Amino acid sequence: MYRTNTCGELRLADAGKEVTLAGWVQRSRKMGGMTFIDLRDRYGLTQIVFNNADNAGLCEQANHLGREYVVQVTGKVAERSSKNPALPTGDIEIIAGDLKILNPAEIPPFTIEDETDGGDDIRMKFRYLDLRRPCVRKNLELRHKMTMEVRRYLDSKGFLEIETPMLVGSTPEGARDFVVPSRMNPGQFYALPQSPQTLKQLLMVSGMDRYFQIVKCFRDEDLRADRQPEFTQIDCEMSYVEQEDVITLFEGMAKHLFKELRGVEIDEPFIRMPWSEAMKRYGSDKPDLRFGMEFVELMDILKGHGFGVFDNAAYIGGICAKGAAGYTRKQLDQLTDFVKRPQIGAKGMVYARVEPDGTVKSSVDKFYSQEVLQEMKQAFGAEPGDLILILSGDDAMKTRKQLCELRLEMGSRLGLRDKNKFACLWVVDFPMFEWSDEEQRLMAMHHPFTHPKDEDIPLLDTKPEDVRADAYDMVVNGVEVGGGSIRIHDSALQAKMFEILGFTPEKAQEQFGFLMNAFKYGAPPHGGLAYGLDRWVSLFAGLDSIRDCMAFPKNNSGRDVMLDAPAALDPKQLDELQLALDLKEK
Amino acid sequence: MYRTNTCGELRLADAGKEVTLAGWVQRSRKMGGMTFIDLRDRYGLTQIVFNNADNAGLCEQANHLGREYVVQVTGKVAERSSKNPALPTGDIEIIAGDLKILNPAEIPPFTIEDETDGGDDIRMKFRYLDLRRPCVRKNLELRHKMTMEVRRYLDSKGFLEIETPMLVGSTPEGARDFVVPSRMNPGQFYALPQSPQTLKQLLMVSGMDRYFQIVKCFRDEDLRADRQPEFTQIDCEMSYVEQEDVITLFEGMAKHLFKELRGVEIDEPFIRMPWSEAMKRYGSDKPDLRFGMEFVELMDILKGHGFGVFDNAAYIGGICAKGAAGYTRKQLDQLTDFVKRPQIGAKGMVYARVEPDGTVKSSVDKFYSQEVLQEMKQAFGAEPGDLILILSGDDAMKTRKQLCELRLEMGSRLGLRDKNKFACLWVVDFPMFEWSDEEQRLMAMHHPFTHPKDEDIPLLDTKPEDVRADAYDMVVNGVEVGGGSIRIHDSALQAKMFEILGFTPEKAQEQFGFLMNAFKYGAPPHGGLAYGLDRWVSLFAGLDSIRDCMAFPKNNSGRDVMLDAPAALDPKQLDELQLALDLKEK
Repeated sequence: MYRTNTCGELRLADAGKEVTLAGWVQRSRKMGGMTFIDLRDRYGLTQIVFNNADNAGLCEQANHLGREYVVQVTGKVAERSSKNPALPTGDIEIIAGDLKILNPAEIPPFTIEDETDGGDDIRMKFRYLDLRRPCVRKNLELRHKMTMEVRRYLDSKGFLEIETPMLVGSTPEGARDFVVPSRMNPGQFYALPQSPQTLKQLLMVSGMDRYFQIVKCFRDEDLRADRQPEFTQIDCEMSYVEQEDVITLFEGMAKHLFKELRGVEIDEPFIRMPWSEAMKRYGSDKPDLRFGMEFVELMDILKGHGFGVFDNAAYIGGICAKGAAGYTRKQLDQLTDFVKRPQIGAKGMVYARVEPDGTVKSSVDKFYSQEVLQEMKQAFGAEPGDLILILSGDDAMKTRKQLCELRLEMGSRLGLRDKNKFACLWVVDFPMFEWSDEEQRLMAMHHPFTHPKDEDIPLLDTKPEDVRADAYDMVVNGVEVGGGSIRIHDSALQAKMFEILGFTPEKAQEQFGFLMNAFKYGAPPHGGLAYGLDRWVSLFAGLDSIRDCMAFPKNNSGRDVMLDAPAALDPKQLDELQLALDLKEK
Repeated sequence: MYRTNTCGELRLADAGKEVTLAGWVQRSRKMGGMTFIDLRDRYGLTQIVFNNADNAGLCEQANHLGREYVVQVTGKVAERSSKNPALPTGDIEIIAGDLKILNPAEIPPFTIEDETDGGDDIRMKFRYLDLRRPCVRKNLELRHKMTMEVRRYLDSKGFLEIETPMLVGSTPEGARDFVVPSRMNPGQFYALPQSPQTLKQLLMVSGMDRYFQIVKCFRDEDLRADRQPEFTQIDCEMSYVEQEDVITLFEGMAKHLFKELRGVEIDEPFIRMPWSEAMKRYGSDKPDLRFGMEFVELMDILKGHGFGVFDNAAYIGGICAKGAAGYTRKQLDQLTDFVKRPQIGAKGMVYARVEPDGTVKSSVDKFYSQEVLQEMKQAFGAEPGDLILILSGDDAMKTRKQLCELRLEMGSRLGLRDKNKFACLWVVDFPMFEWSDEEQRLMAMHHPFTHPKDEDIPLLDTKPEDVRADAYDMVVNGVEVGGGSIRIHDSALQAKMFEILGFTPEKAQEQFGFLMNAFKYGAPPHGGLAYGLDRWVSLFAGLDSIRDCMAFPKNNSGRDVMLDAPAALDPKQLDELQLALDLKEK
């Protein structure tokens, strides 16, 4: 046995006990004839004291311990004369009687402290040292607690966790698959699942009734800031349910998690907002409702006054930033630059300040009378000291999305996006399809298995673009933490859906025959949803990136820099797989 | 809402209630003016009654329901006149007032009953129908319950579940990897993990202290009966532990699982048997201790009597099958054929019966006097009516393994391997290395990270083949359900181990540098173990194959016949991966 106690558990009541601790040397200090060591493990820090007068040899040994040495200390728990109220163990210290070095340590390449001197690259290369920092470790502890609570909750509701395979078939519809060559079936490949969507539907056909799985999913996409090639879903499906049943159950789970993980009690039901309303009021299907700053449409007020940009616009809208009229020219230029960045793509921004006397001063005063500007002020309900920001464009949807970015930026600048405040809602009534300019056809907005709203089914033949789906997303603080839908369980309706999506019957059969055939043998009505675990943990932990809640994330090139993966294969392995590299010149 | 109750929950106390059920038509019977439907869901069966006299139209509708139709029924709970004590819902029935067909069903290709008429191939192709059979469903329910209990137990002991990546680096040491081409890093490949071994060790270096994960692992091996390309491990690791700490904790977990999942209370500690003893007494490192039939070595007794086969043998040993002296010549020939099968490889078998008068009749009587045979009888403690079976060979270890197979076969034939009886033990003190004829070098018996026993470390330089490891396997009923070891945490010892295993320092650095380097920054002593979840669930469920406790297993060619995976890739996908097929002629 290496230890009697952890470094986080001894208290004043333990004074006088003989204990053995083991852990890492966080820091050491020499003061007069005493040497103090802070010993660290996952559970906390405990101060160890070596007294030169009592045992000069032991103290000398302690003086040679370096940072991150792994040591075992036996000694007596004693009350500290100068207590440290910041530490749970701060009332005591261990008077060392014995010291054993279990493993020495080279000087780590960065400091093992919450505020470290290590940059991102070096910390990722030595991720096993980065994980020693309490602020990083806490994210993994939270993740563990979250999955435990999710499982407890779903188990209590009769859900079964069922593992679906990782080596499945490739479905070119959707994002790009990672593939796995099969040695036993030369020339053939498995795919890693982008989600267990079709398999969980088959589990419903099999009568499993309530399924969930916390499961790795894979997408071979060009990585953006907050994407990882492998990520984890809380994947759920239920039989004999309508949208209301799914929403009720998973809203219950969300409230349970908020309470258990963050101590936040949410009593009132989550807001339900139709997709079209979310787009109109916030320009987003995942609006951040921690703050207002709703869109105000200005077409009626600002069109037709000779300002060409607005006169030719398909959409003119703005937001009112309370109390921001004092923004300097420089700050306003920064905002203009912000919306003109290629990722956002606005052509420009118009602003208007409400002066202390209630008059409005705008950047386009030469086109508008004070009367019109006052009308605009009233539309916003703006008051002296407020700043109005306006965008316009020839594509209403695109302009709304630009205005959404501006709203979020202003929310951040004005400190309205408090990480300890949570605003939850369901976005519902999504369109079934969206038009793809690239593919020149309708695409499923969620996926091809989504059930259209019953009352919209007649529109499938006449105006498919107007059909709404039984689909719903859970949104917290502007992050889509989960989403799902009622699924089609009728093979004829499923076939029609594939037809609208441009599949020939043969192609639909080839790719999804296993599912459509299954529907012929008694498929129950079913629906479900999937949460992005990484996103949700990040939200609870107040992180800016999902990377920080993963033990061993990959970088933006999809590399694990610690393991140095991926890497070239042994030619023998390629040969066994009956594959050859076919590298293109760069 | 589709239902007020499930098909498994209504009781006599519910009589008089108006309820709505939904489920599958298990069977229907017409008796006089009544039609009876057994409605099935995951939770049970409920009888529905349609009365022609009350509602002829509804009854007529019911008469047209086929097997596996999905229906919704509303009606009144009533006491049954002829109760069915075999069903929890057998005291009641539902007098139908309304019937709605939610989905019709084609006639399933096999009967959805525990005793089905479907063969293995058709059931795998229509696995979603196979899973409707209660006996198959129960295995998945048990698996869910098992993982819940494992998580609860380990969480209560301070373990954190931490997800390690699925896209890692390939390590040619060990079994063959499945690999994943990286599109973003052309010419490079990830590997799917055979186990998170090195990653969990890095988590110990990172101070996580107690880690577990229920995790998919992958091995590209030629599939034998009970192998699957993807399987699930309960993977665990602890810091600051010795072998005794790990064994104590996981024996506790095993006992907890036996109690919760099978209602079996195990009070006494598990037997600990050194590997060498297990090999000597049972010819196996995973002996089935549900029955005795221990090996008796007969070299001293049977050598040197002119029977050439024995006189030239390096090993002669046998087992005594109580009460089997009545075995016919035909049965004995079957046993001889059994041991001569190529998978077992014995050259022949000698048998001896103990007659009612105590004399011994053997198949080699002409070489042995009754006196010698009596001496043999005493060595076995054999009694009248017993059958002695003897094998010999020129390789003691090989012969012991053959005798082990014979012992297990006799155990099965004599009904000594009761699936409801559980015999648990730890096999300990494994050899560190085993000689590989194929590779002509020592190989790690567990893996290269296993810690040698402290007292045997001096032998590493002189007699490495005698070095024992701090390794342990948990064995239940002849199945290795889990195994692990204390790991090396010292980079110098780890380097020495790689040297003995024939790695050049460069190759060791190239393949395991990330781990050896990590050890330089303060690695704590650590150890752990991994359980095979599939094997363990199979054992608890009394299954013969791990396949039956997986939702969607693969066949012996590594194919998912339901999904028809693996399959050829779209040439565009291969092109994006910068790969070409290089198929060999068959």
